[in-house]
Amino acid sequence: MDVSVKPRRLESYLAGHWQRGAGDGTVLRDASTGAPVAVIDASGLDFAAALDWGRRVGGPALRAMTLHDRALMLKALGLRLMEMKELFYAESFATGATRADGWIDIEGGIGTLLSYASKARRELPNTRVLTEGAVEPLSKDQSFSAQHILAPRHGVAVHINAFNFPCWGMLEKLAPTLLAGMPALIKPASQTAYLTELMVRKIVETGILPEGVLQLVSGAAGDLFDHVDGQDAVTFTGSAETGRRLRTHPAIVANSVPFTMEADSLNASVLGSDAAPGTPEFDLFVKEVAREMTVKAGQKCTAIRRAFVPRAHADAVIAALRGRLAKTPIGDPAAEATRMGPLASLAQREEVRARTRDLRAEAEVVSSDPDRVVLASGDAEAGAFLGPVLLYCDRPGAAEAVHDVEAFGPVATLMPYDELEEAVALTQRGKGSLVASLFTDDPGVAEEAVIGMAPFHGRILIGNRAAAKSSTGHGSPLPMLVHGGPGRAGGGEEMGGVRGIAHFMQRTAVQAPPRLLGAVTGRWSEGAATQAGTHPFRKSLADLKIGDQLVTGPREVTLADIEHFASFTGDTFYAHMDEASAKANPFFEGRVVHGYLIVSFAAGLFVDPAPGPVLANYGIDNLRFLTPVYPGDTLRVRLTAKEINPRANADYGEVRWDCRVTNQRDEAVAEYDVLTMVAKVWPPE
Amino acid sequence: MDVSVKPRRLESYLAGHWQRGAGDGTVLRDASTGAPVAVIDASGLDFAAALDWGRRVGGPALRAMTLHDRALMLKALGLRLMEMKELFYAESFATGATRADGWIDIEGGIGTLLSYASKARRELPNTRVLTEGAVEPLSKDQSFSAQHILAPRHGVAVHINAFNFPCWGMLEKLAPTLLAGMPALIKPASQTAYLTELMVRKIVETGILPEGVLQLVSGAAGDLFDHVDGQDAVTFTGSAETGRRLRTHPAIVANSVPFTMEADSLNASVLGSDAAPGTPEFDLFVKEVAREMTVKAGQKCTAIRRAFVPRAHADAVIAALRGRLAKTPIGDPAAEATRMGPLASLAQREEVRARTRDLRAEAEVVSSDPDRVVLASGDAEAGAFLGPVLLYCDRPGAAEAVHDVEAFGPVATLMPYDELEEAVALTQRGKGSLVASLFTDDPGVAEEAVIGMAPFHGRILIGNRAAAKSSTGHGSPLPMLVHGGPGRAGGGEEMGGVRGIAHFMQRTAVQAPPRLLGAVTGRWSEGAATQAGTHPFRKSLADLKIGDQLVTGPREVTLADIEHFASFTGDTFYAHMDEASAKANPFFEGRVVHGYLIVSFAAGLFVDPAPGPVLANYGIDNLRFLTPVYPGDTLRVRLTAKEINPRANADYGEVRWDCRVTNQRDEAVAEYDVLTMVAKVWPPE
Repeated sequence: MDVSVKPRRLESYLAGHWQRGAGDGTVLRDASTGAPVAVIDASGLDFAAALDWGRRVGGPALRAMTLHDRALMLKALGLRLMEMKELFYAESFATGATRADGWIDIEGGIGTLLSYASKARRELPNTRVLTEGAVEPLSKDQSFSAQHILAPRHGVAVHINAFNFPCWGMLEKLAPTLLAGMPALIKPASQTAYLTELMVRKIVETGILPEGVLQLVSGAAGDLFDHVDGQDAVTFTGSAETGRRLRTHPAIVANSVPFTMEADSLNASVLGSDAAPGTPEFDLFVKEVAREMTVKAGQKCTAIRRAFVPRAHADAVIAALRGRLAKTPIGDPAAEATRMGPLASLAQREEVRARTRDLRAEAEVVSSDPDRVVLASGDAEAGAFLGPVLLYCDRPGAAEAVHDVEAFGPVATLMPYDELEEAVALTQRGKGSLVASLFTDDPGVAEEAVIGMAPFHGRILIGNRAAAKSSTGHGSPLPMLVHGGPGRAGGGEEMGGVRGIAHFMQRTAVQAPPRLLGAVTGRWSEGAATQAGTHPFRKSLADLKIGDQLVTGPREVTLADIEHFASFTGDTFYAHMDEASAKANPFFEGRVVHGYLIVSFAAGLFVDPAPGPVLANYGIDNLRFLTPVYPGDTLRVRLTAKEINPRANADYGEVRWDCRVTNQRDEAVAEYDVLTMVAKVWPPE
Repeated sequence: MDVSVKPRRLESYLAGHWQRGAGDGTVLRDASTGAPVAVIDASGLDFAAALDWGRRVGGPALRAMTLHDRALMLKALGLRLMEMKELFYAESFATGATRADGWIDIEGGIGTLLSYASKARRELPNTRVLTEGAVEPLSKDQSFSAQHILAPRHGVAVHINAFNFPCWGMLEKLAPTLLAGMPALIKPASQTAYLTELMVRKIVETGILPEGVLQLVSGAAGDLFDHVDGQDAVTFTGSAETGRRLRTHPAIVANSVPFTMEADSLNASVLGSDAAPGTPEFDLFVKEVAREMTVKAGQKCTAIRRAFVPRAHADAVIAALRGRLAKTPIGDPAAEATRMGPLASLAQREEVRARTRDLRAEAEVVSSDPDRVVLASGDAEAGAFLGPVLLYCDRPGAAEAVHDVEAFGPVATLMPYDELEEAVALTQRGKGSLVASLFTDDPGVAEEAVIGMAPFHGRILIGNRAAAKSSTGHGSPLPMLVHGGPGRAGGGEEMGGVRGIAHFMQRTAVQAPPRLLGAVTGRWSEGAATQAGTHPFRKSLADLKIGDQLVTGPREVTLADIEHFASFTGDTFYAHMDEASAKANPFFEGRVVHGYLIVSFAAGLFVDPAPGPVLANYGIDNLRFLTPVYPGDTLRVRLTAKEINPRANADYGEVRWDCRVTNQRDEAVAEYDVLTMVAKVWPPE
């Protein structure tokens, strides 16, 4: 260790420039060695100007892009960061993270970017403003309707992150924020901010993000919050105490700034009443508790803090866990043999030891002395090492601290229960958690426990033999699932797939005559203007307009058609074939035309057969048969271009057609959306 | 007026009993006459016990009911209240409301109950726990998946309501709360609490709601908030000052209690740059501004406070508004000729006059002297009457108070703009509002203005000639649309159709092997267990189980089938008919089988023809053609019962079938949901 190397001075990236604070700064030290790694300070920086920069420069740049443009930007960024990953791993060891810990933080974080980039392009249209839910007709004559839209907020998303995941913590929030069209300002916890600063530096160097879209504060937030307004948003991950202080900050309260908080969480894991020693579920539970105690040295907000087991199996669980934990080599996080590194700092170790003392008032230590650590490598004096501490509390119903005190390190308390109902009630004593897990192979146990635990948890994982290899694990938030929990956990919600994007957008109900509603949403709805003329299947995306419409000539459906279709397809369902049985059916007056024949005849009426810009029918949505069709009825089709969605990186795009089939009395007999791929230009250039 | 009648002493309905406060109470007075109407007091009542009662008695009762049971309960309640509506109208006059004002409050409120009851049964399944979004496969081998569920929170929803809508304010919150499965405790503002108390009394008398589901505080909330916990929820409608105090209450902050706030709002209306005098939009704008100023004497959180007009038309708008407002008879709300009643109280009038003085620092009065009122009936001394005050501010860009001060009465400020962009920026100066309206017939104006205003508003209404008769009006929140706004408006969101129900539920991501996931959600998903045996179309709802499955024999599709189907249906699209053109298409290798033929043959393979419990195929959802089918390919179908939804009040229910069509290589060629109606028992009893 060369202590003569001067530690790196961290900078903040604000208003388009890397800037240093005016003070001397605080030295940040290597978790394992105590050697200085970096100096951090953000005093005197102009946060009001930074927020203004984000609002004036970053916001408009993002809002000018479509959803798919933003997604492709994230994809490009993720791929570039993945190429540079070894840079981040090298810096990550100083935080105390092993390579495996770093994988969660670095590749897990970059993977979240990539997952969002792909999900957004798959699940969202290529527009600037999103619509949500169905058009709501507000008048019988279709002259007034409403639709909800989601538009990017005009402010800056301020993300306050915790020390334990300097990369993932930033990226999991950045992905939905930027997709939504909102610029971000990141403030990582100081202890590991050098890794965040390195990654932001590399992100800025790529030039992939427009200016103003990403800003970084390395150091204390100073007067930052005095300047937030009602278009900004704040997310907070960290201690409940700091979270409460920020949540009640006058500017946040006065401007009703959306505040998403993820704080303390006494996550539980329950061994099902069916899972005796010898079952795969018993072994999976033991493995998971041991893993959650040791990964990141237990410094995960999702780690298992409370483990509930059937009283009869408590001794067996203790024995099995003791065995596993004893075989966990603790030491230098950069050493390959190490399975658990140090805590983030000596101060953090002191804090965990203090909280463990609180727990010991109600529970006994059954594995590892909290005040002494046996190392496979590294320096037990200079490094923040701590062995995995398993406690046992025999009467959890009467205890308090075990349900209230979070020791944010490799510490968990094992507790017995008698009936499953009691186990569920004990999980609820956590007063709201990010996650709970349950190990069972019994559907009855799964149902009872999950329904009981759900209102108190943001995520619940069930492990069993069938998912032994595929389970993603108790402690892993996933980009497609919500992350956050009620009550003590902060009441926030992050990620959750495209749900997470909506946190950074304003939902607005737009009420208007359909023609003007379409001008806002870019979508046609019933009652809006239509244009006849050239068959719309003859138009490429370059020519096709919302509201382009075809109304077909009539086609009669005969009894012979029904008979013919039935014998051709084999669909001889009685309602089509047998007059008496059809009449006895509560929905029909006699033999009824097959639904599949209606849509087949409809296609025969609306398709334009010659080669043209329409490339394929790739599906149908929301088909409803509304009025029975009887022999002798006459069908017409009205086909209207409803949504046009050019793909960002292909020669074609999706067109959604509103298809309405009517009978001779103009009653709708079927309504559905026909989904087609259409060329951007025709003939191909 | 008989002043010798002793005013009614209001009671609170808590923990199953009507209770009186321990104090002398405060006298509430008739808005028009000053006569005592009621005495209110809730001092000394045990709010901790009330919350506990709701959690212990009300919550479990609601959670035992299904969504449709709860909806039918609301419907029954709404119908009974509608029968009693005259009772409420009679009491409503004392609040200062005319019959038309009372209609919004009383029938609008009851209508909201009924609308929710019907929407929930139409749009939600008949289950206890809701699923949200698609199943997310988390492993390639389908052994681990996830789905989000919504489960009722285990606490009490505390609703703090404003004085202006004593009925609607309660009912619009009660509907989604009870549907969600959460009990409510209502605390109306004192000034008009006698009407709320009367309605709650009538609700309790019907016996329709289970005990503990609805509680009422008539009077101050005392230490109520000290007792809320992380499973409770609070909504607040009222002044920003009180809202901020409650939002930062230690128990709310410490427990991260969801807090929905709806407070001040300086709602704007914009006359489009295209809407000159003489256009229908000009007239509609004038009518709407005048209506919003006078309905409920302007005491609506959604009322227009700021009206922006093209500078060239400012004089014409002033003249037209003056004319309209002068023709508004003000007086006794019970008198038929009256179009505007008094404010809620003399204190309220003083407050409005004070705020109007603030506005006059920047704007001149152009209609009605705020300090003098001309009455058609009633007593100008004893009643809180005030004429409609229209102000004009010539330089709104340089002004502050007109964008910041809310005079909660018949007061609005007219302001000119030069460019549409400026009008949009001025609406944003409200710093977040519940609603804005725009009067235009120009799609370009609609698009620019709405996209600019959306992030600052919860609702935007566009009025034009086409919607002259059908528009629901600037000031009317609707049950199917969100109500609430960002920033100054409180950042809350109420109603919004079934969205509003989710506010009172916890969203939980459940990760599990599909078999156990299905045990929790009651739905089959890919990878879960299946059962073969009797054809599932032979099973009534009483016998059918999730996972009941049919795998059909194979059917080859020939070129002759394509030809035959094309000539029968008329669908001669080139990709089916012309080898060369089909090959030129980017998606196909040659002539491809019609998608409609695939689903038709699939039905031929899976239907069971004889009369039985399956009554009808009423639709198809999410049909996707995944792999092209070519002549010579062989199809099979796998049909699996996915969701079973017995209707609460019919002899049948919906069954959703997962339908997967595969080719001879076991590749999925089409996937979709088949929707059927199935009898509860078969044969019918």
